[in-house]
Amino acid sequence: MNADKIPDIIIGRLPIYLRALQRMSEKGMKTTSSQELGEHVGISAAQIRKDISQFGEFGKQGTGYSIPFLMDKLKEILKVNRMWDVVIVGMGDIGHALARYSGFANRGFRVAMVFDVDSAKVGQRVDGFTVEDAAKLVECVRNARIKIAMVTVPAAAAQDVTDKLVQAGVKAILNYAPTSVNVPGNVHVQYIDPATHLQRMTYYLD
Amino acid sequence: MNADKIPDIIIGRLPIYLRALQRMSEKGMKTTSSQELGEHVGISAAQIRKDISQFGEFGKQGTGYSIPFLMDKLKEILKVNRMWDVVIVGMGDIGHALARYSGFANRGFRVAMVFDVDSAKVGQRVDGFTVEDAAKLVECVRNARIKIAMVTVPAAAAQDVTDKLVQAGVKAILNYAPTSVNVPGNVHVQYIDPATHLQRMTYYLD
Repeated sequence: MNADKIPDIIIGRLPIYLRALQRMSEKGMKTTSSQELGEHVGISAAQIRKDISQFGEFGKQGTGYSIPFLMDKLKEILKVNRMWDVVIVGMGDIGHALARYSGFANRGFRVAMVFDVDSAKVGQRVDGFTVEDAAKLVECVRNARIKIAMVTVPAAAAQDVTDKLVQAGVKAILNYAPTSVNVPGNVHVQYIDPATHLQRMTYYLD
Repeated sequence: MNADKIPDIIIGRLPIYLRALQRMSEKGMKTTSSQELGEHVGISAAQIRKDISQFGEFGKQGTGYSIPFLMDKLKEILKVNRMWDVVIVGMGDIGHALARYSGFANRGFRVAMVFDVDSAKVGQRVDGFTVEDAAKLVECVRNARIKIAMVTVPAAAAQDVTDKLVQAGVKAILNYAPTSVNVPGNVHVQYIDPATHLQRMTYYLD
């Protein structure tokens, strides 16, 4: 396995495969084929086989893939065969929804701290967390050695919060603020913005 | 402009450009260059020029792009120079956050109806909307001729809700349920799943 050479577009499909395998596993299934997996995720069987074969020979000709085995391998590749602590910055509606979301634990993530800039929220108990003061963001995140953050602040505050997270050692940011942010080359950012996703689809509508 | 031939990856970047231009415009800026826009969105100036030139000659050598003009052109291309009605299916935490989100209006979208399956919620006034019974989804959406939906139901319910939306004539679905769904070829789906986005980044972490 030569991690440096795997295109990012392939890496981006692995969590989709893992998610589908987890759902199959929850339904009691033990084995699957690239055809069957492909029907679940809307990706061709050939593409799935090609993607997975980048990392080794995980399937058997004729019998397909063992679901628990392939799940273990994908978790290992994606480094979610461990639990990652994550912070949420911004406890508005989306921050609340993320703090309460039950779908992180079985996919490798645990919300460890939540921050807000609003003094009325700081120190309050919300969704099982004590809201920390965003002024202490760098210190708290650095001391806890947290590498992943979800940013749910207004667009105008996003770059400043991002800079502080980078300063604190964060290497992966899921940005819900409706704006692009600049980060050093060794920091990864993914964007979630419903209006952007919707606009990508309206292009195709009549 | 030959719409059929523009790769989807280019279409996917246009809303990012539009969003950055809107922020520039809000700050009072009137013109920009591909270099400046590129710094905002983290995409090379050459790529931006190439993407935009697919649709016509919207910039001037030396003076760059007029921000209002390029915004108008991008809105026209993405068909958000009009207001699209959108429905939300599932009024849990994410559904609430979307119903209350103020960022849709100036980007071409208006939440028109919200649905839930929970009889305790149906008929209640939530976030300025009367929650409609999900049992009436097909009828209501079809009658209102709504083409876009945001689905924020549990994974187990996502395919059934998707099938009903397709039956009602919906052509674009933003799916927040943590599962892939199957749709006919003329229906577009975009996925928002924070755990999937996070797993795509952990691959690169130490």
